Amino acid sequence: MSEQFFNNVNKIQFEGENSTNPLAFRYYDENQVVLGKTMKEHLRFAACYWHNFCWKGSDIFGAGTFDLPWIQPTGNQLQLAEQKAKVAFEFFEKLTTPYFCFHDTDIAPEGRTLKESHANVNHITEIFQGEMQRTGVKLLWGTANLFSNPRFCAGGSTNPDPELFAYAAAQVKHALEVTHRLGGENYVMWGGREGYDTLLNTDLKQESEQYARFLKMVIEHKHKIGFKGTLLIEPKPQEPTKHQYDYDTATVAGFLHEHGLQDEVKVNIEANHATLAGHSFHHEIATACAKGVMGSVDANRGDMQNGWDTDQFPNDVAECTLVMYEILKAGGLTTGGFNFDTKLRRQSCARDDLFIGHIGGMDTMAKSLLNAAKLIEDAPLSNFVEQRYAGWKNELGQSILNGTANLDSLSQLVLEQDINPKQVSGRQELLENIVNRYV
Amino acid sequence: MSEQFFNNVNKIQFEGENSTNPLAFRYYDENQVVLGKTMKEHLRFAACYWHNFCWKGSDIFGAGTFDLPWIQPTGNQLQLAEQKAKVAFEFFEKLTTPYFCFHDTDIAPEGRTLKESHANVNHITEIFQGEMQRTGVKLLWGTANLFSNPRFCAGGSTNPDPELFAYAAAQVKHALEVTHRLGGENYVMWGGREGYDTLLNTDLKQESEQYARFLKMVIEHKHKIGFKGTLLIEPKPQEPTKHQYDYDTATVAGFLHEHGLQDEVKVNIEANHATLAGHSFHHEIATACAKGVMGSVDANRGDMQNGWDTDQFPNDVAECTLVMYEILKAGGLTTGGFNFDTKLRRQSCARDDLFIGHIGGMDTMAKSLLNAAKLIEDAPLSNFVEQRYAGWKNELGQSILNGTANLDSLSQLVLEQDINPKQVSGRQELLENIVNRYV
Amino acid sequence: MSEQFFNNVNKIQFEGENSTNPLAFRYYDENQVVLGKTMKEHLRFAACYWHNFCWKGSDIFGAGTFDLPWIQPTGNQLQLAEQKAKVAFEFFEKLTTPYFCFHDTDIAPEGRTLKESHANVNHITEIFQGEMQRTGVKLLWGTANLFSNPRFCAGGSTNPDPELFAYAAAQVKHALEVTHRLGGENYVMWGGREGYDTLLNTDLKQESEQYARFLKMVIEHKHKIGFKGTLLIEPKPQEPTKHQYDYDTATVAGFLHEHGLQDEVKVNIEANHATLAGHSFHHEIATACAKGVMGSVDANRGDMQNGWDTDQFPNDVAECTLVMYEILKAGGLTTGGFNFDTKLRRQSCARDDLFIGHIGGMDTMAKSLLNAAKLIEDAPLSNFVEQRYAGWKNELGQSILNGTANLDSLSQLVLEQDINPKQVSGRQELLENIVNRYV
Amino acid sequence: MSEQFFNNVNKIQFEGENSTNPLAFRYYDENQVVLGKTMKEHLRFAACYWHNFCWKGSDIFGAGTFDLPWIQPTGNQLQLAEQKAKVAFEFFEKLTTPYFCFHDTDIAPEGRTLKESHANVNHITEIFQGEMQRTGVKLLWGTANLFSNPRFCAGGSTNPDPELFAYAAAQVKHALEVTHRLGGENYVMWGGREGYDTLLNTDLKQESEQYARFLKMVIEHKHKIGFKGTLLIEPKPQEPTKHQYDYDTATVAGFLHEHGLQDEVKVNIEANHATLAGHSFHHEIATACAKGVMGSVDANRGDMQNGWDTDQFPNDVAECTLVMYEILKAGGLTTGGFNFDTKLRRQSCARDDLFIGHIGGMDTMAKSLLNAAKLIEDAPLSNFVEQRYAGWKNELGQSILNGTANLDSLSQLVLEQDINPKQVSGRQELLENIVNRYV
Repeated sequence: MSEQFFNNVNKIQFEGENSTNPLAFRYYDENQVVLGKTMKEHLRFAACYWHNFCWKGSDIFGAGTFDLPWIQPTGNQLQLAEQKAKVAFEFFEKLTTPYFCFHDTDIAPEGRTLKESHANVNHITEIFQGEMQRTGVKLLWGTANLFSNPRFCAGGSTNPDPELFAYAAAQVKHALEVTHRLGGENYVMWGGREGYDTLLNTDLKQESEQYARFLKMVIEHKHKIGFKGTLLIEPKPQEPTKHQYDYDTATVAGFLHEHGLQDEVKVNIEANHATLAGHSFHHEIATACAKGVMGSVDANRGDMQNGWDTDQFPNDVAECTLVMYEILKAGGLTTGGFNFDTKLRRQSCARDDLFIGHIGGMDTMAKSLLNAAKLIEDAPLSNFVEQRYAGWKNELGQSILNGTANLDSLSQLVLEQDINPKQVSGRQELLENIVNRYV
Repeated sequence: MSEQFFNNVNKIQFEGENSTNPLAFRYYDENQVVLGKTMKEHLRFAACYWHNFCWKGSDIFGAGTFDLPWIQPTGNQLQLAEQKAKVAFEFFEKLTTPYFCFHDTDIAPEGRTLKESHANVNHITEIFQGEMQRTGVKLLWGTANLFSNPRFCAGGSTNPDPELFAYAAAQVKHALEVTHRLGGENYVMWGGREGYDTLLNTDLKQESEQYARFLKMVIEHKHKIGFKGTLLIEPKPQEPTKHQYDYDTATVAGFLHEHGLQDEVKVNIEANHATLAGHSFHHEIATACAKGVMGSVDANRGDMQNGWDTDQFPNDVAECTLVMYEILKAGGLTTGGFNFDTKLRRQSCARDDLFIGHIGGMDTMAKSLLNAAKLIEDAPLSNFVEQRYAGWKNELGQSILNGTANLDSLSQLVLEQDINPKQVSGRQELLENIVNRYV
Repeated sequence: MSEQFFNNVNKIQFEGENSTNPLAFRYYDENQVVLGKTMKEHLRFAACYWHNFCWKGSDIFGAGTFDLPWIQPTGNQLQLAEQKAKVAFEFFEKLTTPYFCFHDTDIAPEGRTLKESHANVNHITEIFQGEMQRTGVKLLWGTANLFSNPRFCAGGSTNPDPELFAYAAAQVKHALEVTHRLGGENYVMWGGREGYDTLLNTDLKQESEQYARFLKMVIEHKHKIGFKGTLLIEPKPQEPTKHQYDYDTATVAGFLHEHGLQDEVKVNIEANHATLAGHSFHHEIATACAKGVMGSVDANRGDMQNGWDTDQFPNDVAECTLVMYEILKAGGLTTGGFNFDTKLRRQSCARDDLFIGHIGGMDTMAKSLLNAAKLIEDAPLSNFVEQRYAGWKNELGQSILNGTANLDSLSQLVLEQDINPKQVSGRQELLENIVNRYV
Repeated sequence: MSEQFFNNVNKIQFEGENSTNPLAFRYYDENQVVLGKTMKEHLRFAACYWHNFCWKGSDIFGAGTFDLPWIQPTGNQLQLAEQKAKVAFEFFEKLTTPYFCFHDTDIAPEGRTLKESHANVNHITEIFQGEMQRTGVKLLWGTANLFSNPRFCAGGSTNPDPELFAYAAAQVKHALEVTHRLGGENYVMWGGREGYDTLLNTDLKQESEQYARFLKMVIEHKHKIGFKGTLLIEPKPQEPTKHQYDYDTATVAGFLHEHGLQDEVKVNIEANHATLAGHSFHHEIATACAKGVMGSVDANRGDMQNGWDTDQFPNDVAECTLVMYEILKAGGLTTGGFNFDTKLRRQSCARDDLFIGHIGGMDTMAKSLLNAAKLIEDAPLSNFVEQRYAGWKNELGQSILNGTANLDSLSQLVLEQDINPKQVSGRQELLENIVNRYV
């Protein structure tokens, strides 16, 4: 079709492991059934609006390198946004990701007033409804951008100015309602500026209270409007601020417990945020599963030699196998998905690079799913773990966990029976070798 | 006295800022009154038993360099422990730190059975009682070492083996009781092996439950025996394990909330653990104060270029001024203190280096206290912060915090009044310059 | 004067240590003589063009927050550049920094051709000549920006395309000549994109040869045109690329030796680049002095918890004292200076914040100079070091250094005389305490 | 044989990819021919003496967990060393690594004098000769331990005391001669304490001269005794010291050039040291190949979340494939090999864990070799790279590289022909996807 933007790319097909076609899948066969569900149902892939269609490849040292003709300093911004929407859906459809994700400000230009901004978003939302109908692409999650406009430089809900809080509240209300209108399955909060640049001008306790209050308002509103999707917080330790309050999964889970919100909010884990926080991607996923707050995944990767968010496409099958394994063990994703919060490298300025990057990411996750499914079926890890902790099913273990034992009784036991446990091999190398049989 | 170990060092005296005597204090005048309390009461300094008297200066690449004659591979270990106790109290007395701290295994050799270990600890405890009486030195906190013996290689309370849990419980019970007997003002838990080396052999959820149960047992026992001191958890992100569960203050505070223990346990913050966790020392202290869990401090410093616990003596007056400022703002230390969890560099093998290191640390904290007191009195920071958040005292701010506002009402307000906040300078450089006037 | 941009700020004055005027110097008295030179001569302060006048406070997550009316998406860019130049010199004059620094693309808009770009630069250069004459402000160094334009996305001199190399050469030739025309005292090369994003598409050996050839061309041209200033390479380990070839001072010095250029090029050390490379600022300065390549300093600081270039104003007097001490020991700066390659925090959007940031930095360096001068005069460190290495002045030491000893002779000596050296205290804590007496 | 230490382990066999036997190779078939050489010839595996037989699993927070009965605080240390040697060769033989490596102090106890230490080493050397004869195991490299004994706490060749330098020289002379006697193919220098703990007591320039002089002595002695093996320096950035002079490959190569030693010394690259230095393993290997100093490899891995040397077994086939690819491209290893400088995790205290760890590492490298060989044969990367730099084969490129072009001529060319290069895709994601087809 002459009017297509990616006119040299057709719908991406599954061609199997031996394909050398850079524009085909080698592992992602959306209809292949794995452990009783199709790959499509397991992986629930999403492409993002922002990095793909709103960012020209600029970095802090240089201007954009990508050819995105709808990004213009002047001209009718709403028309350009319409053009962008059309290209985005062409991309989603050809890539075959069943979902997409967006911030309010990604999709429509900000107006002179919030009312005007809302109107712009509503306008594009209608276009989305048509495109979603036409293509079958669905909304994984929406969110409000509370960090790019200069007004948010000191945060949104944690801003020193209550009027700014009110502004943020109004923006989130609208983004949540638009998400609901579009059938979004989750709503995400990423607090890019909810943190501090310096403790010298910051009242931590005050900001913490503001943040909790904001969260409660969003929860109340979700129920009020009947939104059935999941609310998600996206942990990140720093960048753009020196310190972000949603540092990592454990911090977020703790905050939720502090305010009694642990049943209302889950986490959206991003691989690159995990490593910036000093954790492995695997750790953050396993922690979220263990704490019952696993929600969704921003599937990307960082660069272990670089201390900022590089948002590269996932390509480490070994690590992603363990990530998938944790998720499968925990029952799989429900409303969440794997959203590619990924950027092309700034040098990757060929138009089809955008497809190639995503294909690599999708195949990485698909192969990881296949590996993980086999790990579930053969159960070499879970059998080992079960046996390792077997003692906790016995009388002593149960008496400890159910609260009948106490320091006195345990001390008496040890002293009287001269209990003297010795080290037992944790078999780390063996288990690592076993995992390498599956990747 | 001919039998003294540090026979070339006399009791350290305050000589004032201009002294060049390396064995004198320039700022720490224990009787100087600052904001209504003496320096001694504010700072509550402690010296530790382990690095000072139980470690010969070995590192993972080399043998010990220090001359500690009571550390011998063979010989009567209990007699050597007696000799060590005597030297330790000679040191505390000459250094004039009002407190000390210890692990059970620091002070007495482990026996073939736990019963024998307890007996050894009890024996030294009696010697301590005499020395404490004689010198007036008090116990800031005691603790149990659940990480050095091979039996703890997979953790104490989070061990896969409930018998090991029981052993750890018996050891903690005794250490807590000994701490109580010696009038200790706190009891610390540092979970050096409470974490994992690999997720492959670990059940995070199971270990989390074990850990919570352990904590509750300790709390119950504390009350049962009438110990009035504070229970403290010491956050550390990793080392020796790949990942420790008590990662940082926010994680610990969240865990306490998850289990309803937030009123029973506080944190013992170590500067070097803060930086290993990707935080500043200032951040961890400020977070603990804001979350109401500030307990005590392990005053040391790391090396920002090295990724392990270097435990150097604090010497950064600028940073420690801000640390002291946060603590003073929060009302000062209560049962906690500044414990020097510090190691001499391995090359610092002259006998008086141990005094010199501590004197530097004590003067750093004393000067920081003086600076912070002035920051409290002049209030340039708190005035700025108060004004910055002033809006939250007004009607809009109050309606948000007290829950009368919601997303609908705030959205209506913004849209109707076209509220459109602009960026306001956070004045970071100005505040930093102001702080530099005080350090 | 009504037409001034910083109309509420007058020329900054020295008011002494007790001043609380945020727009006055407390330590920087340009005429104060220290070790035989004025502070102005020692410190040779420069302000930079780029962060101060070409950057609106944007970061990768948000738009600019600063009020710089000469940055406009449309309009006559050359006229805007003239306006910018005027404001810049108003700033330099009021701040009293004797020098400034710039990239070619900072000062004038890029044209459609390189010829046009050169013409634009030439036009502004003439304005500079007038302003420099009027104000007495001088040029510390100039440089060419080979990283912002998309054409440089794969590097300048290390680009896979020799035409791009030629383009970079042409740009550097012009920037070097403009620097010469303006009496610049140095010319800097910062290879922001001279590195790689992935090894997969990179020929390291080829790029290394290109880079060496480029450097030689610049050296040849410098001599050809009679430029007497110093050529400087600015080490940085990464950002924007994954890996930059000029990783740190040791790497650059080694590269210069590999190509026999060690007498022609020196380094421009930036504090924040030092810490990104895993070094302390002090280390990089000391290394450059020891290797004889110390040239100039980009005086700023990073944030030890953030893994990117934060370019904050220096404010750590303790560290900068040691930096100044190394420089004084090595004879002081010659053609180099202290250039503030510093950015305001994005929230610092008040117009006078730019002065306040610089004043803090200048006072930090001035106080550090005073401290370091005292360290030089009293010589507590150098006396210690001299004594520590005294053995190398003796016969054995000399025989080793002058090459008369060899493994055989030394082995014979040790075995025959049973030489058996023991550890000697390095006195690190003592020396740290001594330094704290001076800061 | 009843007297064997690893009596439940037989010689490890190759069983093929589908084997689930933890004590068999899945990929390492020593006789399989790959690109014209056997795997054994390509990989030249070595096991190390130190971590395997001289370390009981202690870390800085706890005592050893491993059952190594020849490590005893008392008793006849030389007899224990004999026992150790026997077990070591039992291990090498069963593991089928063709090589081993050692430090002088690993193999024999230190005596009261250096003469006695030499005699002990000589005694064990004779035992080695017998065992090497019996088993066919060869020596990849020997080295002297200049870091564990307290006398080396301030370094060996960079020590402030020339007598210590002499002592180090005598020790290296003997270790080099023993290596020669045993037919060692390389001699390694790892400067664990050649660095500084604090700049305050250090004369960098002096120590650099000492180090260069030491290196020259070793080179001279090597030639004098007719040792044909390669001298290797092992880069490491820090640990145990704050800063080590042999920071990374680029630093070492630069130092060699500074002193004209680039043809005499190569590097022994350790994966974990690479990542501690802020580099990828791949980067260090590629840099060494590009600079012509690639010597040998200490094959292990670090933990990206831990800031110290964890020395884990390599298990990342994706990364090691690229490492092998660089080495194959550069012609393969000559005198070097892949030495497992690896430690079991402290919890891995079962006796066969030592085999399991090495088998995992050997299979990882063997599979990587197979993958890399295919990358060489199919040449998808090298074809891309060749084409990317094709311009440098043309007239313009050649004129630049051969020195006929200069800034003037290039500038003229660009201005006259209005050369204006545009960005070209670097195709990073495409290349990453291609690599994933091979791993």
